[in-house]
Amino acid sequence: MMREMNVAIVGATGAVGTQMIKLLENSSLPLGTIKFLASKRSAGKQLSFKGETQTIEELVPDSFENIDLALFSAGGSISAKFAPEAVKRGAVVVDNTSHYRMDPEVPLVVPEVNPSALRDHKGIIANPNCSTIQMMVALEPIRQAYGLKRIIVSTYQAVSGAGNQAMEELKQQTQDFLDEKPVEEWKADILPCGGDKKHYPLAFNALPQIDVFTDAGYTNEEWKMINETKKIMEDDSIKVSATCVRIPVMSGHSESVYIETEKTATVAEIQELIAKAPGAVLEDDPSQQIYPQALNSVGKKETFVGRIRKDPDEEKGIHLWVVSDNLLKGAAWNSLQIAETMYEMNLFE
Amino acid sequence: MMREMNVAIVGATGAVGTQMIKLLENSSLPLGTIKFLASKRSAGKQLSFKGETQTIEELVPDSFENIDLALFSAGGSISAKFAPEAVKRGAVVVDNTSHYRMDPEVPLVVPEVNPSALRDHKGIIANPNCSTIQMMVALEPIRQAYGLKRIIVSTYQAVSGAGNQAMEELKQQTQDFLDEKPVEEWKADILPCGGDKKHYPLAFNALPQIDVFTDAGYTNEEWKMINETKKIMEDDSIKVSATCVRIPVMSGHSESVYIETEKTATVAEIQELIAKAPGAVLEDDPSQQIYPQALNSVGKKETFVGRIRKDPDEEKGIHLWVVSDNLLKGAAWNSLQIAETMYEMNLFE
Repeated sequence: MMREMNVAIVGATGAVGTQMIKLLENSSLPLGTIKFLASKRSAGKQLSFKGETQTIEELVPDSFENIDLALFSAGGSISAKFAPEAVKRGAVVVDNTSHYRMDPEVPLVVPEVNPSALRDHKGIIANPNCSTIQMMVALEPIRQAYGLKRIIVSTYQAVSGAGNQAMEELKQQTQDFLDEKPVEEWKADILPCGGDKKHYPLAFNALPQIDVFTDAGYTNEEWKMINETKKIMEDDSIKVSATCVRIPVMSGHSESVYIETEKTATVAEIQELIAKAPGAVLEDDPSQQIYPQALNSVGKKETFVGRIRKDPDEEKGIHLWVVSDNLLKGAAWNSLQIAETMYEMNLFE
Repeated sequence: MMREMNVAIVGATGAVGTQMIKLLENSSLPLGTIKFLASKRSAGKQLSFKGETQTIEELVPDSFENIDLALFSAGGSISAKFAPEAVKRGAVVVDNTSHYRMDPEVPLVVPEVNPSALRDHKGIIANPNCSTIQMMVALEPIRQAYGLKRIIVSTYQAVSGAGNQAMEELKQQTQDFLDEKPVEEWKADILPCGGDKKHYPLAFNALPQIDVFTDAGYTNEEWKMINETKKIMEDDSIKVSATCVRIPVMSGHSESVYIETEKTATVAEIQELIAKAPGAVLEDDPSQQIYPQALNSVGKKETFVGRIRKDPDEEKGIHLWVVSDNLLKGAAWNSLQIAETMYEMNLFE
């Protein structure tokens, strides 16, 4: 049996970090020491872990001495600077930011889909984008059984993916609405994207921008879904397009997904596949109004799939509605699950 | 010149009726008498019209004596019962419910798209579904210039389409959220669909059900979009599929629309078409974060179109984001616009 594992959490006070800590308390990993790391601003604050008080330390390169596993969720620039420092000191890094995802040297992993990619790691493993992960859980079993030629996805994404401050902003705007303040007086400093020039209210609105705009009129979030899907499924021939939209939901991303398979499948066959698929839960009974809902997904690790139906015109076209807690399977849980999977695969030597 | 027109509004106290009255105050129609009709329950209530107080009358068959134009927006069963009574008494009916939409004897009209269908009317003209109308305004100019083979739409629909009580329900749930009441205690008696068995909270949620489920796992709202599109565009060969979703927005429907054209078009060409299209406004500049937003659409008659971009893989595939006030262009304004168009076409003789 392996020695106990010393774990560091980078970005311990963020929306994802908070979930990471909760999950780690119940993890199957044999924990040794645990270290909570954050910016200078948060250093000195205290956190509870398994009933014991822990003090947050300032993140510096030497924070990773004696660390076996470092879970990063503090923004791409932090990962860029400190993940190599952690690796240099012998830690395995699971990075929840987008920084390393498309690096050909870095495996991009959803454990239900491509665990074998973990074997090729060189110290850093990237956790995919939240909206990509849940789509992969739903589509991989279909791809394996029927082939996958095409994906068109429109997302309904929750605000927690933009962090704690964005959640507070939505809450305040919601209060302003109930107080009948005119929209022009609602405070909007963060959404749709903290780093962009203009900010718009999200309360009682739908914002078709997540992350900044890059090439060809697509946002970075949309390109993440497109490019990460091909990398995770290891198939550049799959046609993927995405429209990513933020809606006034706190947690739980929903996705309207259209796919075209290579072989024809019935709805019942797809339902059976989803019902058996690892990490997926079938919630699909129109006669009983059973379908996945963002509110119901909160706090759950699974990806919920329903509204499975044939396209009215395309024999090989299928529509699905895919929902998951973006902070859990979309971020904290997938990261920790990568670590647990690596442990089971004896990859921590 | 034609005589003044006597107008009746059926369902004057509803969410759409209220908008209808406001629009009628500024209509180009030469108004004679105006009659507000509603159920026995609302009869006797008073309304203001052009600064004068008007009393709501109970709807009975003889309400339509001497009426030239009757605007119906009080539910399908009311239209089924009373629209023929109005026609019998010489009125032209513009019906905002779904009751007559697919009747081959009844024109289904978006004035920017198929005004000539009005010439064939036999007394009743149907106003299309809100989510269909705005999509037609955006797509018809593209269809005319480049042909249209296929539409895949995912909607982000506002609650006002479900009526005043549904709006109150969302407001109360929103307050319950801010008061930190557990979700189980939120009151949910109407949404997703008043006539269906189960009800779910909409606040901070996304509900992939609008109207009841019918055939093949699709909801009635989805079939409306599919069937009405083919009827309005007078082309059964267009492939259409829809996923209709209610989100916590008060007014303003948003739509993520994917189309495949017959001839190849550039983004600039599509943008130019939309900029010139009747009833449409181009809001499309990613570099300045300009795109249509539900909150901005409220109170406006136009349909706003942006996020126009090519599919990454399909040469003839285009994505668009289409937003409009569902109570105005989606309902009250399109209905009144039908009447104004008929007047201009001398169809009230």
